[in-house]
Amino acid sequence: MSLGAPMTTDVRMRGFRERAEVAAVEQLILGRLRSLPSEPVALLAGAGRVLAGDVIAPCPVPGFDRAAMDGYAVRGNETFGADAYAPLEFAIVGAALPGRAFTGQVAPGQAVRIMTGAPLPAGADAVVPAENAGEIDNGTKVRIAEPAPPGRHVGKRGEDIEPGTVLLRAGRRLRPQDVGVLASVGFSPVSVIRRPSVAILITGDELLPCGSKPEGFRIVDSNSVMLAALTKRDGALPARSQMVADGYANVKQAMQAATEDVVLVSGGSSVGQEDHAPRVLAELGELCVHGVALRPASPTGLGFIGPRPIFLLPGNPVSCLCAYDLFAGRAVRRLGGRRDSLPYAVVEVPLARKIVSMVGRVDYVRVRVEGGQAEPLAVSGASLLSTTTRADGFVIVPADLEGYAEGANVQVHRYDA
Amino acid sequence: MSLGAPMTTDVRMRGFRERAEVAAVEQLILGRLRSLPSEPVALLAGAGRVLAGDVIAPCPVPGFDRAAMDGYAVRGNETFGADAYAPLEFAIVGAALPGRAFTGQVAPGQAVRIMTGAPLPAGADAVVPAENAGEIDNGTKVRIAEPAPPGRHVGKRGEDIEPGTVLLRAGRRLRPQDVGVLASVGFSPVSVIRRPSVAILITGDELLPCGSKPEGFRIVDSNSVMLAALTKRDGALPARSQMVADGYANVKQAMQAATEDVVLVSGGSSVGQEDHAPRVLAELGELCVHGVALRPASPTGLGFIGPRPIFLLPGNPVSCLCAYDLFAGRAVRRLGGRRDSLPYAVVEVPLARKIVSMVGRVDYVRVRVEGGQAEPLAVSGASLLSTTTRADGFVIVPADLEGYAEGANVQVHRYDA
Repeated sequence: MSLGAPMTTDVRMRGFRERAEVAAVEQLILGRLRSLPSEPVALLAGAGRVLAGDVIAPCPVPGFDRAAMDGYAVRGNETFGADAYAPLEFAIVGAALPGRAFTGQVAPGQAVRIMTGAPLPAGADAVVPAENAGEIDNGTKVRIAEPAPPGRHVGKRGEDIEPGTVLLRAGRRLRPQDVGVLASVGFSPVSVIRRPSVAILITGDELLPCGSKPEGFRIVDSNSVMLAALTKRDGALPARSQMVADGYANVKQAMQAATEDVVLVSGGSSVGQEDHAPRVLAELGELCVHGVALRPASPTGLGFIGPRPIFLLPGNPVSCLCAYDLFAGRAVRRLGGRRDSLPYAVVEVPLARKIVSMVGRVDYVRVRVEGGQAEPLAVSGASLLSTTTRADGFVIVPADLEGYAEGANVQVHRYDA
Repeated sequence: MSLGAPMTTDVRMRGFRERAEVAAVEQLILGRLRSLPSEPVALLAGAGRVLAGDVIAPCPVPGFDRAAMDGYAVRGNETFGADAYAPLEFAIVGAALPGRAFTGQVAPGQAVRIMTGAPLPAGADAVVPAENAGEIDNGTKVRIAEPAPPGRHVGKRGEDIEPGTVLLRAGRRLRPQDVGVLASVGFSPVSVIRRPSVAILITGDELLPCGSKPEGFRIVDSNSVMLAALTKRDGALPARSQMVADGYANVKQAMQAATEDVVLVSGGSSVGQEDHAPRVLAELGELCVHGVALRPASPTGLGFIGPRPIFLLPGNPVSCLCAYDLFAGRAVRRLGGRRDSLPYAVVEVPLARKIVSMVGRVDYVRVRVEGGQAEPLAVSGASLLSTTTRADGFVIVPADLEGYAEGANVQVHRYDA
């Protein structure tokens, strides 16, 4: 199946004519999608968001020479020789508090009580920590028991951050301390990449709405909540979910009406008689991929309506998770300015049992990690829903391998991180 | 300083009399705090939350025998011998769709069109995938080119999940696929541990509100947004932040009025003249810890007012981050039912340069990871705000070590994960 070019498709029950390679689908996503535009947000909403541009420090940190400890501001040279057995005495002439400077000058033989963060008074050049000092004579004098050479416990103006330096680079996902630093230099609001909006269209007349109890031959929609949680994890806005009744016209109307940045269609993506989504997509825009050499998510499709990617995800929850992880999630993360690679921590462990795959096909194999080994679950295919919760993660068997032997070291993408 | 027992304190400028050990403070937190009670939430809000109890499957999955592929439901024994050169023909007698069963019986020589997820018709016991079949004679017959032994591509009732089995254990942090599985078995709402509420009290008259530009000797509050982001990351509700004017009465009033599950007081935690928080806490409840053998967060306090932990965090942003990471975050995570351990991914790498610490003190050393080595930043102490953003993570030097030699393998807790 050709990639990137529009195709028409006739989706009777005939099976996929040709399946796209996973790597080609990934390349298509990366080739077609870029970060969304930026938007300004308050710092309180900034953590976790992706910086749209470099942040240049607009002012020095500290903005003035200041005490780094609670204690006494002195002329450091005068403290040489002080020790616990021969403390030196200084006259206390005032106090400096954070935000409230001592306005006088510290003369020889004088000290000023100073608190951490307070501006260093003129004349003083060092701070003796409170631990090394003791006040006497009703607080008119202080005895200093340890020397504090010039500069000791003083934060110099600009020593931490010079104005004009690059504080944070574009593309950075802001950490809690990053928004703190932005606050410190008065950089607010901050310009970040817009979060992608997502529509989740759930097809299948057999489905009862999420939250129902299964009854008779009807099963309960579970992909809407799973996909909503996955897209949120990947930085999207809260998704809009909608159940779409079967039938060509309904699917077409819903796909046409979705104006979100990303559209996920769950179900109806294969080649059965109620699988309208591929044809609808080909009519409304381009169907670039229909069928992927990927187990357990071969009935996956991808196309575009204008700039908007439309993912046709299998209705089977395990296949849906697989297709989301490998394809749709990549698009969500890329639009939101995040790294498009898989968002899971990786551990390398030996396989407890061999995995059999096929050359030309990628396998997404759920595994349990126990006793430092990865145990493949449900090698039989897609249908075992429970594998997604029993698994600690998954192993990707690349297209050029027939599998992995028992004992082979494999990379497990951990679901819990 | 004793742990666990109330103490009174006289907080003139005298330095800490004795510093608590980091491990003892951690034990105090774990000993005093338990998970909050549970609350029911809709599945859409369930991902990321912590399960309050085991989930027992109330019904089988699948709830009925069903097709695992699109294709044709047949009597599997009749397909033996079929291949592409000698396909076998079956009469098509109907169709089974998901949620819409074929109500007849599949007799010998007959096939029913079936879609993935549709109930398997009576009489049939296997599904021939559409890829291995072709309809002829205007869709009245199907030629089958590959055998499908009994059971092939059929999901048996309960084969995935048996009723009564434990699906998910109490304490599990729900993954996207977990809420999907809960939806599938009709388990909604789900009972999860309540999220802790957090008050952030920012003290220090020198501080301008977050979002301002620094001016003169006044600096901008940055701990409120940093702490809000940290507590959110650790599973808390959005925090309430409040700036508190200096002065004993103001601090007392604010601490007394905070009814959240956790109270974080930023600033005023040391032994300076405006450091009212420790005394106020001792008066309103218990001050269990004041001063910790931890660099760069020695002016940290911890106490309780009733069941509510009150953390006195240093105003210095670097120290504040350190004290949050090691102590307050542990409390937030524990109350919310999460693992209390540090929520960072760990990598083990050699040190590019030695770290000097002191026996009896824990050091929280920010490091950059470059070229597979950890480079310590700002070994001089707390004051360098920029280290928190330049660092890729931190190394903990335990109390029983004097530091680490150059080249020693250390565990780096990565800030980005």
